[in-house]
Amino acid sequence: MHLASDNTGPVHPQIMALLAEANAGFAKPYGADPLMEEVRTRLREVFEAPEAAIYLVATGTAANCLGLATLAPPYATVFCSPNAHIHVDECNAPEFYTGGAKLTLVGADDKMTPDTLRAAIEGEEVRGVHGPQRGPVALTQATEMGQVYSVAEVTALAAVAKEYGLPVHMDGARFANALAATNATPAEMTWRAGVDVLSFGGTKNGCMGVEAVILFNPEKAWEFELRRKRGAHLFSKHRYLSAQMAGYLRDDLWRDLAAKANANMARLSAGLQDLPEARMLYPAQANIAFVDLPRALHRRLTEGGVAYNIWSGSLDGADPAEPLPARFVTDWSLSHDDIDAFLALARG
Amino acid sequence: MHLASDNTGPVHPQIMALLAEANAGFAKPYGADPLMEEVRTRLREVFEAPEAAIYLVATGTAANCLGLATLAPPYATVFCSPNAHIHVDECNAPEFYTGGAKLTLVGADDKMTPDTLRAAIEGEEVRGVHGPQRGPVALTQATEMGQVYSVAEVTALAAVAKEYGLPVHMDGARFANALAATNATPAEMTWRAGVDVLSFGGTKNGCMGVEAVILFNPEKAWEFELRRKRGAHLFSKHRYLSAQMAGYLRDDLWRDLAAKANANMARLSAGLQDLPEARMLYPAQANIAFVDLPRALHRRLTEGGVAYNIWSGSLDGADPAEPLPARFVTDWSLSHDDIDAFLALARG
Amino acid sequence: MHLASDNTGPVHPQIMALLAEANAGFAKPYGADPLMEEVRTRLREVFEAPEAAIYLVATGTAANCLGLATLAPPYATVFCSPNAHIHVDECNAPEFYTGGAKLTLVGADDKMTPDTLRAAIEGEEVRGVHGPQRGPVALTQATEMGQVYSVAEVTALAAVAKEYGLPVHMDGARFANALAATNATPAEMTWRAGVDVLSFGGTKNGCMGVEAVILFNPEKAWEFELRRKRGAHLFSKHRYLSAQMAGYLRDDLWRDLAAKANANMARLSAGLQDLPEARMLYPAQANIAFVDLPRALHRRLTEGGVAYNIWSGSLDGADPAEPLPARFVTDWSLSHDDIDAFLALARG
Amino acid sequence: MHLASDNTGPVHPQIMALLAEANAGFAKPYGADPLMEEVRTRLREVFEAPEAAIYLVATGTAANCLGLATLAPPYATVFCSPNAHIHVDECNAPEFYTGGAKLTLVGADDKMTPDTLRAAIEGEEVRGVHGPQRGPVALTQATEMGQVYSVAEVTALAAVAKEYGLPVHMDGARFANALAATNATPAEMTWRAGVDVLSFGGTKNGCMGVEAVILFNPEKAWEFELRRKRGAHLFSKHRYLSAQMAGYLRDDLWRDLAAKANANMARLSAGLQDLPEARMLYPAQANIAFVDLPRALHRRLTEGGVAYNIWSGSLDGADPAEPLPARFVTDWSLSHDDIDAFLALARG
Repeated sequence: MHLASDNTGPVHPQIMALLAEANAGFAKPYGADPLMEEVRTRLREVFEAPEAAIYLVATGTAANCLGLATLAPPYATVFCSPNAHIHVDECNAPEFYTGGAKLTLVGADDKMTPDTLRAAIEGEEVRGVHGPQRGPVALTQATEMGQVYSVAEVTALAAVAKEYGLPVHMDGARFANALAATNATPAEMTWRAGVDVLSFGGTKNGCMGVEAVILFNPEKAWEFELRRKRGAHLFSKHRYLSAQMAGYLRDDLWRDLAAKANANMARLSAGLQDLPEARMLYPAQANIAFVDLPRALHRRLTEGGVAYNIWSGSLDGADPAEPLPARFVTDWSLSHDDIDAFLALARG
Repeated sequence: MHLASDNTGPVHPQIMALLAEANAGFAKPYGADPLMEEVRTRLREVFEAPEAAIYLVATGTAANCLGLATLAPPYATVFCSPNAHIHVDECNAPEFYTGGAKLTLVGADDKMTPDTLRAAIEGEEVRGVHGPQRGPVALTQATEMGQVYSVAEVTALAAVAKEYGLPVHMDGARFANALAATNATPAEMTWRAGVDVLSFGGTKNGCMGVEAVILFNPEKAWEFELRRKRGAHLFSKHRYLSAQMAGYLRDDLWRDLAAKANANMARLSAGLQDLPEARMLYPAQANIAFVDLPRALHRRLTEGGVAYNIWSGSLDGADPAEPLPARFVTDWSLSHDDIDAFLALARG
Repeated sequence: MHLASDNTGPVHPQIMALLAEANAGFAKPYGADPLMEEVRTRLREVFEAPEAAIYLVATGTAANCLGLATLAPPYATVFCSPNAHIHVDECNAPEFYTGGAKLTLVGADDKMTPDTLRAAIEGEEVRGVHGPQRGPVALTQATEMGQVYSVAEVTALAAVAKEYGLPVHMDGARFANALAATNATPAEMTWRAGVDVLSFGGTKNGCMGVEAVILFNPEKAWEFELRRKRGAHLFSKHRYLSAQMAGYLRDDLWRDLAAKANANMARLSAGLQDLPEARMLYPAQANIAFVDLPRALHRRLTEGGVAYNIWSGSLDGADPAEPLPARFVTDWSLSHDDIDAFLALARG
Repeated sequence: MHLASDNTGPVHPQIMALLAEANAGFAKPYGADPLMEEVRTRLREVFEAPEAAIYLVATGTAANCLGLATLAPPYATVFCSPNAHIHVDECNAPEFYTGGAKLTLVGADDKMTPDTLRAAIEGEEVRGVHGPQRGPVALTQATEMGQVYSVAEVTALAAVAKEYGLPVHMDGARFANALAATNATPAEMTWRAGVDVLSFGGTKNGCMGVEAVILFNPEKAWEFELRRKRGAHLFSKHRYLSAQMAGYLRDDLWRDLAAKANANMARLSAGLQDLPEARMLYPAQANIAFVDLPRALHRRLTEGGVAYNIWSGSLDGADPAEPLPARFVTDWSLSHDDIDAFLALARG
């Protein structure tokens, strides 16, 4: 039972098939391949953004950091959640790509609010040249804890950013899951709400390793291209990135896969909530759940072969009733039967 | 009345005299001047550290960042107070000099404790290669709020750092003030307590612009020299840095000036504490006081010609009784008469 | 006819097949997949280097720059050919990844010699702390111009480097082609000759996008892992990198493909040398030829549908006899019939 | 006899006097002192540039690198002479401050020409996103070899730069000497000729340690201020930088000192040219001479107590007639008697 991460599952057959098809003969390198043209056209349609500049890279960290580097000069600070991937999970890659910008943590919760964001912004740049300068606001959508910002929430946060003249970045490694959770359109969730640059994830939702970076304002497109090359993220055999993303977009596969991953999680979290000894730590709005479970239950799940992460604490502790937080992640490749088998095991 | 900062006062005459004396004829550049030899010898005596590598730079930020850069690789995080100068007052210079290391804020208070430090260290590097790696612990002595770590406190914090194999940096822009407040010896306060690298401040205590960086373990001395040059902080006419520091060290001038600055503050803070409407925000252990004063009193002080900083809020608010925090800093060049005149004005 | 680059051709079926096979079910992320174990074992065997640390990345620039960054501190200079990919084709990525190291160009020729290398090394670090410090020697094997260093040449160059205590890096984006041209063993061409870090290319020789970095001395393995993550080059769904490299190594496919690419070039360059109006600019020892051809011949080739690069000058010039340099690159996917068709067209 | 460098001599008394005067009482920090206002006003007059942004730093390397960093993005290359201080004498500081830009060496001579500059520019950015992008042209005036660009030469070089849309930087560590050698006005030599940013040196011409950076177009002034702070080059007790520069500018002291230094060199080089065994390597147009002298003569000078640099080779060689290059530098503090005594010794 694989509930450890949405980066452990397989690539969707439709994407594998297009990779195989794209492999015929020769193709121009570095993004001049025909499938990249399809990707560009399709993403502009999907986002109702005919002017957007669109690029592919192979990792989510690259997508985030290259995007942020076009928004944050080295003397700026990026406003983000204490849980943001760019803060906790990228080994200082944002600091590297921006040339030494800082990250300012907004509030103490997983999700920012206009109030915590405003307080964080007000707390910086009160010292003129001495402190870091206010830089981009970086949202994670869905969050690392599996929560989703509504369009209204994104709009309100972006409004605070705009009030201070700050650009807005969205880490959408799980953008498809967030969208599936809200029924918003891609445009509503992004540029119409005030987002300037989006990392549009593919890897965690059925691709092999591809993310699109979408600059809704193409002014910094060339700078982005130079930073991508200089970061060693420009692929020579680019057609294989294009093929993944094209396969992901065709027939709205990306939406279907996210809907399936979320439905799996909805089933799983509903089942968990029926367990008297389980306590949800966050609403499981996308495809991630954080749940406190007693140590004894963790032992049963682990012995039963469930792969997942115990977020802190150890199975070896004395008290079988002590709650330890678990993270469960569902991807599209799990079936309802998989979820039900897990729940059966959890119920004991 | 000048209580705004210890960087607004004059250079001590003994230092000016040695600068004039050092100006005769020719001298070898880049630290090969004879006065640098005197400085090196004297600081090694003062710190009972005959092997220490000793360098001069002209700004406190340079001293801190060059020292930190020899301790923190770019994929590390530096543990520091939320109030640390390196965090709030250096416009991302530490991020720049380390090549993109992160700063992790320890606790919510001005001073770290072993508990808050341990919690912060434990909070990082739980993710292997994914998160920043644990790097140096950086203490500010005296703190930006005017507090002083005792030798016991430094020792306890360094012990936590050592437990995790982490080096300890001390920002001693006001090291002399801290020492004057504790009667510890320089060695007790630094390497004997576990400090690896010290920024030994001169600028704020009667010099023109000079700080010594002391590497108690000289292993990285050559790296430091290269980083100093590459940071554009190696002075060609180095004798004028040497002369400042030599003049500062001769006859323990540095201790006398710090004692005088602290005594000025003791007098000032005692007087303030007698005011019923004043509330000390931190114990004024060195030469800085943070005090809540009612707006009406701020107005009287300002109109009376006192130069100081209102840390937040505005004189223009409606409520004359609303308390606003003030920062007062005393240097050696103020007299007791100056302090008394200030207090008389404060008393109204 | 596709002679523009070895990054425009398809992925070999054996590699595609293993990608498809690897796609079944779940796999641990970040290099903990079983195929990475196979890759590690196999490359250690191939290189007779049981202690070597081995990592995969997706681009040649990443392989080079991450390897160099573990060898060159930011105050160093890297010695390389004026034609080196790291100098002319990576948009300052080496400067980025090293944190600001410099590149010193060795001699004026495509290949370094011990004499030009020694002269370049002697020319640096004559100024102590003032100039850049001598850093790694970086060889390109095969070179950008299609030349190959013999084992004796690599050994002689590495000996000069070692004399000065400098590490040796080899950009082996076309390492397989170089090996095929010399009949040396992988060990002879690398660590036995004095190479410390190798970029072992896959992308240009039948893979989709994968390069191995081999640290023959594993001392800096952990630093490499951190730099890879921080550079956003650690793949979460790593199994697809592993599968490419495993497929490339199985049954010595990598050698077969390089031999085929080189044989295609041997046939092509032999044919060109029979043309009286063609002049080879470099010996075509691997899979690249640089040839001066008259403008009229360029026109015929272009109109005949040959895709290749005219290295300088324009088809539009007046003089049909003026020679313009061409670059032809052959990959494994071309047949002898393809080459013969090209030569027939060239002969007119 | 001190002919080693213009960074070994004393500070001019007029500057020392103003430092002493500026030391009275308190002054606002960070450039808000009244003498900085005088400096700003005076330099704008001197350069006939009422809009110019003007900043002070303490080292020439800082002046150059901060200026260049506002002109060169990290993916650019800076065009400079192979002898440029920024290339050979700053331990990769330009690479550090620009965040990893490259330096492209123009031609093989000390001075650039429009032809060598054009060739160098044409040689870069022929590869689109793959190579470094063309960045600023950096002139050294006077050059490290003691040559001076005429206004016509600067204008012609800047015209080439402008043709490609590139900004022009001038390292004027010895700008005063260059001006004294040409009788041009400061405006003619800089912005009227096409220079965008100037490092206006003080340190080598009678100051203690101060350089002005002049941005003739103030658009990037705030960015400069942030980069200066982040580079740790913003002085808190700024009045002592201001006092040096103000003292240097008052009564055109800077011109007098440069004229005197140049006159000393004219006398020295005229004398050397009378020696049959001496061969000038460059015209000594400012205050530096490079001369080939036989080893025997070097020995006589060295034994006679002359401090200067033998640029390559060793006194210990066998052949007393073998010529070795010497560098002689004269500053304002030498007298004609000093020069004559040197020449007498040289004549034997």
